[in-house]
Amino acid sequence: MNPDFLPFMQELAHAAGQAIAPYFRTDGITDNKAAGGAFDPVTEGDRAGEAAMRSLIADAHPEHGIIGEEYGISNGDADYVWVLDPIDGTRSFISGIPTWGTLIGLTHKGIPVAGMMAQGFTNERFFGDGNTAFYRGPGGTRPLQARACASLAEATLFTTDPRLFQETERERYLAVESTVRLTRYSADCYAYCMVAAGHADLVIESGLKPHDIVALIPIIESAGGIITSWDGRPATQGGTVVAAGDRRVHEAAMRVLNAT
Amino acid sequence: MNPDFLPFMQELAHAAGQAIAPYFRTDGITDNKAAGGAFDPVTEGDRAGEAAMRSLIADAHPEHGIIGEEYGISNGDADYVWVLDPIDGTRSFISGIPTWGTLIGLTHKGIPVAGMMAQGFTNERFFGDGNTAFYRGPGGTRPLQARACASLAEATLFTTDPRLFQETERERYLAVESTVRLTRYSADCYAYCMVAAGHADLVIESGLKPHDIVALIPIIESAGGIITSWDGRPATQGGTVVAAGDRRVHEAAMRVLNAT
Repeated sequence: MNPDFLPFMQELAHAAGQAIAPYFRTDGITDNKAAGGAFDPVTEGDRAGEAAMRSLIADAHPEHGIIGEEYGISNGDADYVWVLDPIDGTRSFISGIPTWGTLIGLTHKGIPVAGMMAQGFTNERFFGDGNTAFYRGPGGTRPLQARACASLAEATLFTTDPRLFQETERERYLAVESTVRLTRYSADCYAYCMVAAGHADLVIESGLKPHDIVALIPIIESAGGIITSWDGRPATQGGTVVAAGDRRVHEAAMRVLNAT
Repeated sequence: MNPDFLPFMQELAHAAGQAIAPYFRTDGITDNKAAGGAFDPVTEGDRAGEAAMRSLIADAHPEHGIIGEEYGISNGDADYVWVLDPIDGTRSFISGIPTWGTLIGLTHKGIPVAGMMAQGFTNERFFGDGNTAFYRGPGGTRPLQARACASLAEATLFTTDPRLFQETERERYLAVESTVRLTRYSADCYAYCMVAAGHADLVIESGLKPHDIVALIPIIESAGGIITSWDGRPATQGGTVVAAGDRRVHEAAMRVLNAT
């Protein structure tokens, strides 16, 4: 059994939120880290948020490792490793849309054991650690519980952007999209939290990095959901991901994604 | 000069928010008003929100007309007519995403003179009436001011869903999309407010009803933006819409949308 890291994760979320807030809905702060003219925005808020969290971790748990989107890997072979994405959903962030989130994941010997998504503008938190899963927002705190969904025909599906899939992946993704009840785009980490909270049923993505997904795994699983890669392996390494609130709709999506 | 309807519109927004809140992130409340199996969600929250506003208008301004999404037209020939959409962005609403909004528009002899978008979960307000335009949110109140954007290459574009365009419209829309810096989907009325607030530059949509757009016209225009149909007429009747924060990017989009 792992120690209870929740109070420390609340502290990390608070510090990241404070560091990021001055940059949300502020103009002229983006730069461009992509080569070749592609647009891959990164903000000073990203860097400030991650620096704030890394500093707290170094003080409180100097023996722990850190993998962060902005500042890379420190002590990656430690038993406990923090996996941080200060602003998941940067494109929402720079467009003013409050569905970005700060992702704080913790792995023990490579296995995700606790995760928090903190939305700094709405002041919402989504948390899971295998023992408990909760949501805290303007209306108070309540358990996170994924909802039942028996089939794709009943499912609400999220993906960040259908244009992000490569050719074959896109065909398979669109085959799922064509069978579901409702598809929504552009929600990034918020989409996984909506599955954990029982407001949606399915998230399908590809091209993810570990920092995009590690924090969300314990949230989904602790809420009764399931999350894997498209080939059924743990989602910990990123790549292709299928997250579902109900095992039946996960299996149905996997059948379509892997049809030959 | 029109009377100052702002205090009354705040009252309408508050009443609608109170009526709608119990239905946000609550399961099992959607039904289906579309024929033929298409999915067009409408919630009890929609009806409760509109009923609350209609009741206040009937009490305070019995001589005014009302056009509402859910309950239709009353006294539509009056000088002042309220144009109401209790939950614009129903698909976001039923998926738990807080980018839906309550739209409260007021026309005088057919011309939009005041508009408010009220986001009931984040408790945000976007308002414009030709004299003033403001945003009120968790961080306080500030003027709404659209930002400069000289060209499509610099623009952040929103549309609710590229699948909603009909065939020729979709080709023209995609021609614009292919030239902009960043495209975001699924934001409904929130997208127009991001343009008014200077966080985005362009919204292009089609198939809108008057209740989807009337409230947003004074917000965009009072913030220094421009909003028309694709053929340059007033957007009041809905249909195709182009909203921009800067006249130059509006003109550039219009050239692409109307290329022969």
